Amino acid sequence: MGQVTPASGSAAPVERPPSGTRLDPWLGSYADRTHGMRASEIRALFAVANRPEVVSLAGGMPNLAGLPLDDLAESAQRLVASRGQTALQYGSGQGDQTLREQILDVMRLEGISAHPDDVVVTTGSQQALDLVTRLFINPGDVIVAEAPSYVGALGVFRAYEADVVHVPLDAHGLVPEALEETLTRLAAQGRTVKFLYSVPNFHNPAGVTLSRERRPRILEIARRHGVLLVEDNPYGLLGFSGDPLPAMRSMEADGVIYLGSFSKTFAPGYRVGWAVAPHAVREKLVLASESAILCPSNASQLAISTYLTEHDWKGQIKSFREMYRERRDAMIGALKEHVPDASWTVPDGGFYTWVRLPDGLNAQAMLPRAITALVAYVSGTAFYADGQGADHMRLSFCYPTPDRIREGVRRLAGVISAERELVEIFGTGTGPERRIVEPPAPDLA
Amino acid sequence: MGQVTPASGSAAPVERPPSGTRLDPWLGSYADRTHGMRASEIRALFAVANRPEVVSLAGGMPNLAGLPLDDLAESAQRLVASRGQTALQYGSGQGDQTLREQILDVMRLEGISAHPDDVVVTTGSQQALDLVTRLFINPGDVIVAEAPSYVGALGVFRAYEADVVHVPLDAHGLVPEALEETLTRLAAQGRTVKFLYSVPNFHNPAGVTLSRERRPRILEIARRHGVLLVEDNPYGLLGFSGDPLPAMRSMEADGVIYLGSFSKTFAPGYRVGWAVAPHAVREKLVLASESAILCPSNASQLAISTYLTEHDWKGQIKSFREMYRERRDAMIGALKEHVPDASWTVPDGGFYTWVRLPDGLNAQAMLPRAITALVAYVSGTAFYADGQGADHMRLSFCYPTPDRIREGVRRLAGVISAERELVEIFGTGTGPERRIVEPPAPDLA
Repeated sequence: MGQVTPASGSAAPVERPPSGTRLDPWLGSYADRTHGMRASEIRALFAVANRPEVVSLAGGMPNLAGLPLDDLAESAQRLVASRGQTALQYGSGQGDQTLREQILDVMRLEGISAHPDDVVVTTGSQQALDLVTRLFINPGDVIVAEAPSYVGALGVFRAYEADVVHVPLDAHGLVPEALEETLTRLAAQGRTVKFLYSVPNFHNPAGVTLSRERRPRILEIARRHGVLLVEDNPYGLLGFSGDPLPAMRSMEADGVIYLGSFSKTFAPGYRVGWAVAPHAVREKLVLASESAILCPSNASQLAISTYLTEHDWKGQIKSFREMYRERRDAMIGALKEHVPDASWTVPDGGFYTWVRLPDGLNAQAMLPRAITALVAYVSGTAFYADGQGADHMRLSFCYPTPDRIREGVRRLAGVISAERELVEIFGTGTGPERRIVEPPAPDLA
Repeated sequence: MGQVTPASGSAAPVERPPSGTRLDPWLGSYADRTHGMRASEIRALFAVANRPEVVSLAGGMPNLAGLPLDDLAESAQRLVASRGQTALQYGSGQGDQTLREQILDVMRLEGISAHPDDVVVTTGSQQALDLVTRLFINPGDVIVAEAPSYVGALGVFRAYEADVVHVPLDAHGLVPEALEETLTRLAAQGRTVKFLYSVPNFHNPAGVTLSRERRPRILEIARRHGVLLVEDNPYGLLGFSGDPLPAMRSMEADGVIYLGSFSKTFAPGYRVGWAVAPHAVREKLVLASESAILCPSNASQLAISTYLTEHDWKGQIKSFREMYRERRDAMIGALKEHVPDASWTVPDGGFYTWVRLPDGLNAQAMLPRAITALVAYVSGTAFYADGQGADHMRLSFCYPTPDRIREGVRRLAGVISAERELVEIFGTGTGPERRIVEPPAPDLA
């Protein structure tokens, strides 16, 4: 059957305007992995979401208002004046030795003991995740990851053509029985599971934390199945009550690659993160990083190192924790008040709560309406490799003030209410037109 | 036949101590691409080469002695104090808008006109090279590259399992007839050539420059064969005489990905480079970069942007050119005086000269002797994908003072002379034990 072309009186085939991709003379040249890359369909929406009149509960940007900028400015001046020849020069592919020693001090707060040689400094922990995936993943290999998972990790895994298999979370984090069942099933299917990817603390997006009791169990299951654990921990020091839980890397060294970051505990603008890996893996990480970027920025590394030396970084983290706790409280309070028929996680740290919408609502379908109502969030679909998640949204409380958070949730309640009316009249609207959309990296997710 | 085990009286199989790799519990888990990664066999030598008593003619580190560090320190202070909330925050995946506009000013010096939207800022141009290769290369695809080629590019190409086919250079750069012949031959073989990689100006390691006359011819050949050109140009503004030649990107936009860098014209410690690519490729580059690192460092980008705004960057490049020309002269003069039976290129810019050793000498075999004599270089073998190059060495004149350069060449002459005696007595020593070795990235190559 021929295509029906509106307002065309001719019987001849009507030429359609070329799609965007047909304008690309190199379309036939891309690697297979490139075809999996997707531009966000909601970039335009997010451009709007960044306008000041919109309350963005979408972004994962830390709030830097509490940083002592004048002091940092003085430090920057002294660093360039006294050590400029080093700060402005190429450095080691593995990262600055002094900074690597200081990173050990940071990790000690979560019980990790390691050697500076075990640490590889990277361009944010995102680069570490990219390099780990590069080292281990052939197209079609399986990565087991929490359901939901960090959108930026799913992007990396897709770029290396991994097959992501999700394992459920509950209020206490990754469910050991479900992990056991999944790894057993995958083994029976002859699938190659290369690693388990987990954000154990103040999960992005789910807001939950892997309980102390489950940690050794997860490690034991992974060990028994011969599966490496990638422990991604950007938020671990940002807990709202009590001491940090021990990292899984503190319980086992050989089976864990630990990823850390200064982006949430200090500042993301330097792009400094790190990986701690078993010896042989660490050597390969350094080679891979040298191939990818030659070396991490000395200017950035020395700025961080100077900060750790000259400033009360633990006090700064404490004040960040207090700020984020106040914002968490504002968000949870507003959800209780304005959206009582939704449900949500109450995070004990980090940046995010994970909201389950009232039945029948689709977070993705609802997003344009939300933007129109001047509030933004990320649809749950962004956090799954398989199209799940439309019944959830991620709300972040890290960046706006408590008042703005309350105002944002109030607007969201109006959007949800209007969307429910629509659904009651016209049905859920989930159907073949449902699409997976992703937020644009990086500042909004 | 059983293994002979020395000093073993037992008939039972004797366990060998595990090799280094057998100690890696994850050895069976790596991706195919990872098996191509090689640790440098001469890292230990280079660790020695970095000792102050060694004259290193091996490194590619720019000389930063001429930078106005006190002024830069003041700029750094003002930047953090006045724009810290931006400099320390996440930024755009494509890079800072103002910096992208300033990059256009830099490229205009080589005749390039582009739009800020065409520019993608990366963590050094090395990351741009990594991303371009990621976008285009399936394992086994062909990249055509000059013989010799930049060692860091060969490392990237190997990481993506590309098959590098070399095309000869002469004193005027890449030889068009040889390129034509190679592309025709590869097409006849049914091979997929994804791009041509070229360093047209002051080539690393060969020191030669693609002549003005050949540039449109190279472009025409590439276009006719449907092959993308990756024009890698870190040294283009560092010419010792006359104006820069027009970049090939200035002659053609659709068929060229241009890579630029501030590492040689300002400072590598910020790790800021860029790519200019055709529209559709640029979009994919941004997506790939977001996946790899989320975004380039705002702190670094704003530092560079401030430098370009507040300092006489063109004057600084002029003074770099004069410094490097003086060092080039010192090196060429010393080669004439001390190693008259070798031959070399006389670069009109950049950092390197490419020395052909007297017949029978092997640069790779000779390197330990050179290090012992307190002089270091990079063996020519590092710059080929196929094991060629032992008859050449790369000498860099960028970092040591003219006096140290002369002293280095004097030591090298002694090494060459001693090695010739050895070769005259024992033969060339090239045989099955010949190995491909690579210098460690980044600061030494």
